[in-house]
Amino acid sequence: MDFKKLTATDIDNLSKFISDPERFITKPTVHWDHDQFKTVRAMPYLVIQPETNEEVENVVKYASDHHIPIVPRGNSTGLMGGNLTVEGGISLDMVKMNKVLEYEPESLTMTVQAGIRLKDIEEYLANKPFTYMPAPAMHWATIGGNVDTNAGGLKAIKYGVTREHIRELKVVLTDGKLYKFGAKAVKSSSGYSLKDLIIGSEGTLGVVTEVTMRLYPRPKQSINAIIPFPNLDKAIKSVPAILASGVVPTTVEFMGRKVISLWEKYYDEKFPIANGDGFIILGLDSLTKEELDAELKLALAATKKFKAADAVILDANSEEAKKIWTCREALLLAIQKYTPKMDEVDICVPINHIPDVLHRVDELEQEVGMRIPNFGHAGDGNLHIYLCSDAMSDEEFEQKSHYVITELYKTAKALDGNMSGEHGIGYACKDWFEDFYGHDYTELLRKIKHVFDPNYVLNPDKIFPME
Amino acid sequence: MDFKKLTATDIDNLSKFISDPERFITKPTVHWDHDQFKTVRAMPYLVIQPETNEEVENVVKYASDHHIPIVPRGNSTGLMGGNLTVEGGISLDMVKMNKVLEYEPESLTMTVQAGIRLKDIEEYLANKPFTYMPAPAMHWATIGGNVDTNAGGLKAIKYGVTREHIRELKVVLTDGKLYKFGAKAVKSSSGYSLKDLIIGSEGTLGVVTEVTMRLYPRPKQSINAIIPFPNLDKAIKSVPAILASGVVPTTVEFMGRKVISLWEKYYDEKFPIANGDGFIILGLDSLTKEELDAELKLALAATKKFKAADAVILDANSEEAKKIWTCREALLLAIQKYTPKMDEVDICVPINHIPDVLHRVDELEQEVGMRIPNFGHAGDGNLHIYLCSDAMSDEEFEQKSHYVITELYKTAKALDGNMSGEHGIGYACKDWFEDFYGHDYTELLRKIKHVFDPNYVLNPDKIFPME
Repeated sequence: MDFKKLTATDIDNLSKFISDPERFITKPTVHWDHDQFKTVRAMPYLVIQPETNEEVENVVKYASDHHIPIVPRGNSTGLMGGNLTVEGGISLDMVKMNKVLEYEPESLTMTVQAGIRLKDIEEYLANKPFTYMPAPAMHWATIGGNVDTNAGGLKAIKYGVTREHIRELKVVLTDGKLYKFGAKAVKSSSGYSLKDLIIGSEGTLGVVTEVTMRLYPRPKQSINAIIPFPNLDKAIKSVPAILASGVVPTTVEFMGRKVISLWEKYYDEKFPIANGDGFIILGLDSLTKEELDAELKLALAATKKFKAADAVILDANSEEAKKIWTCREALLLAIQKYTPKMDEVDICVPINHIPDVLHRVDELEQEVGMRIPNFGHAGDGNLHIYLCSDAMSDEEFEQKSHYVITELYKTAKALDGNMSGEHGIGYACKDWFEDFYGHDYTELLRKIKHVFDPNYVLNPDKIFPME
Repeated sequence: MDFKKLTATDIDNLSKFISDPERFITKPTVHWDHDQFKTVRAMPYLVIQPETNEEVENVVKYASDHHIPIVPRGNSTGLMGGNLTVEGGISLDMVKMNKVLEYEPESLTMTVQAGIRLKDIEEYLANKPFTYMPAPAMHWATIGGNVDTNAGGLKAIKYGVTREHIRELKVVLTDGKLYKFGAKAVKSSSGYSLKDLIIGSEGTLGVVTEVTMRLYPRPKQSINAIIPFPNLDKAIKSVPAILASGVVPTTVEFMGRKVISLWEKYYDEKFPIANGDGFIILGLDSLTKEELDAELKLALAATKKFKAADAVILDANSEEAKKIWTCREALLLAIQKYTPKMDEVDICVPINHIPDVLHRVDELEQEVGMRIPNFGHAGDGNLHIYLCSDAMSDEEFEQKSHYVITELYKTAKALDGNMSGEHGIGYACKDWFEDFYGHDYTELLRKIKHVFDPNYVLNPDKIFPME
């Protein structure tokens, strides 16, 4: 694509849209050139931090009219380079649009600006009887970023992902107009769901500026338990049995002793559970203690034929529980710590096929001679698989990881899975998209992209190659 | 639009795609000229009942290449004329594609052909530990029709609508190719969700031929109760309080004595609850009896300040319960019985605004001199409002109902609601679409329609006018 480079005139024109020069950054620092993974790096020519819908409207329209790439950005907790200005242009940094606009328990909704962090939403709701149910592990991610990747998190089995909790979006399109997609009303059978088209579109169709979410009554009772198994294979094979037991857990996570030991090393801590090599963390919630007990009993009974040891109940206030959650939430950082470079595959397969994927990972580790630690959401079939460069040269790592990623996508495709369960495709994985989903399918996406962004300025080069 | 009339050559060419002449109906009867509402009537030139994906592919491609309108059709339980061949052409009657293709509890999915009825799915699953959770009242509707209208039903509050239970669709597009949208995998953050674009698109973007649904463990305990209130207003005002009590019911329906009396008259029955003028039917489910009791207690406590009388528990086997459910499910038929013609408005508003809508309905009844009975899903804010012609001339009814519909849409729009909660827009309501959602928004839908159906043959003249 031929994009226009920003000129002094463009800078001058754009600056007039932004009321405060501190939010118009003509000399971006390294802060804006990477996401959490640091694999993709790209420095924007200009960073704009809008505070109002009107500012977004003006800037997006100008960018579109002048063929200047513009890339919306949240708090940059992504792993796929999805919010980087890989074609140059403007980084539209949304973090100053971070207000709660309305809390309305009467309609069970809450409306916020897109740049607010999950953490801030949690704090706002902490003493209220309602909560926003999705629970992505990255609490400092913005809700706009969550919408753009259809973020999943730790409670998706029972409560669904971000998509299921979004009632309405305000979105600026490239014509510079603000659109309302969806409504505060619960249901719709009123034409194509543009709201659902925007969710998961990684900022390539429009800029989300406001989000109306569903409020959910905060569960009165909840419990987490960790279940040790002799090995990871048995742990994971128990999951379909747990889900068939009649219980719908909030959470079913898996992790193995191997990744845990990375965490132990990094934090100089000891994982509190001594027995077992594979673990399931099970979460349940309900109104009454009796319900919780009955659910736990059923779920645990289902694990017994997979040689589960006694479950350890994670009392929320115990040091043991805190340590286990800290470990789960820091697994990525621990993996990242011990390798100079890494890549990720975030495939999601039908829940009964996780063992097939892990088997293939084992084979590839042997075949290629690469460390490939992993963990993930067992109840969703969503695996986070990390390719570590360790002592390899950049060239060797690039070559080998390209092979491993290609093979794992082949595996996921054959199992009727998806390329990404919750992290998105971004820039890092876009070159595999067309092979995975096919040419005709990708052409449909290209045509839809063209409907929304005819000048191809909105977050270009993401999800799939345009031509 | 200029469509081609079917010629003898077309008939001849098309007939070659269908293996059995009994499924190629060149002299359609009245069976194919209406839906349940009978307001819109249109006779197809040709009815084709495909049995395989390949037959659908060939017929759709031929229709598109030759500019012949083609309209997919399920069991025709719709109310909006959405499946009628209003521009002539081919009725693609899907009812013979009615097989269960796969039942796979290990992945918690089930795959069926699109023409299977909900009733048949229920029967197939009756003795299995899993169920398909959405519960539209029309049990003889097809799953394909449910997908095309994003059908809601009686359990949407807790379990969501059709959209939330569809994992994967097979869809034939106008290029004659079969596409897979979605996957058996639970989650996706892998590009624009075409599955979600198809859901609710009323057969205007593609022909759904196969549906993979989520299986859900069948709840062990469930209970329904009817709560009488002194009037309908109090009944409905209690709903936000019930939903804020910490309970997430499966069902919160409302109905008033006025519509109930139509049912009593039609069926020559007596409604079993003598006290109260407004009623809420509350449904709950859980694993244990204790949970159910605690939920019921909380929900009922919330109704007390709205002067609720004692709730009557609807024991599933009692005559009383059967009668009340029969009444709820037959309300539409009872309303339909006593008026020569009727129209419907299916608006969905934020749950706290139902009273505003009912207030406006009362005003319009007075102002226009028209009977406008209604009932609906109080927990979703979805109202089914029926305009009765009674003794009016056709002309008078048309004029008055146009006014009433316009006014009710204005009301719904002002409250941040949707035109249709679950019945769709179809042919009957398409002329109000652009006023409700705006020109720019409608233009986006037109462009998306063009991406999928460049020759404009798939169910033309539905949802919104094309130009």
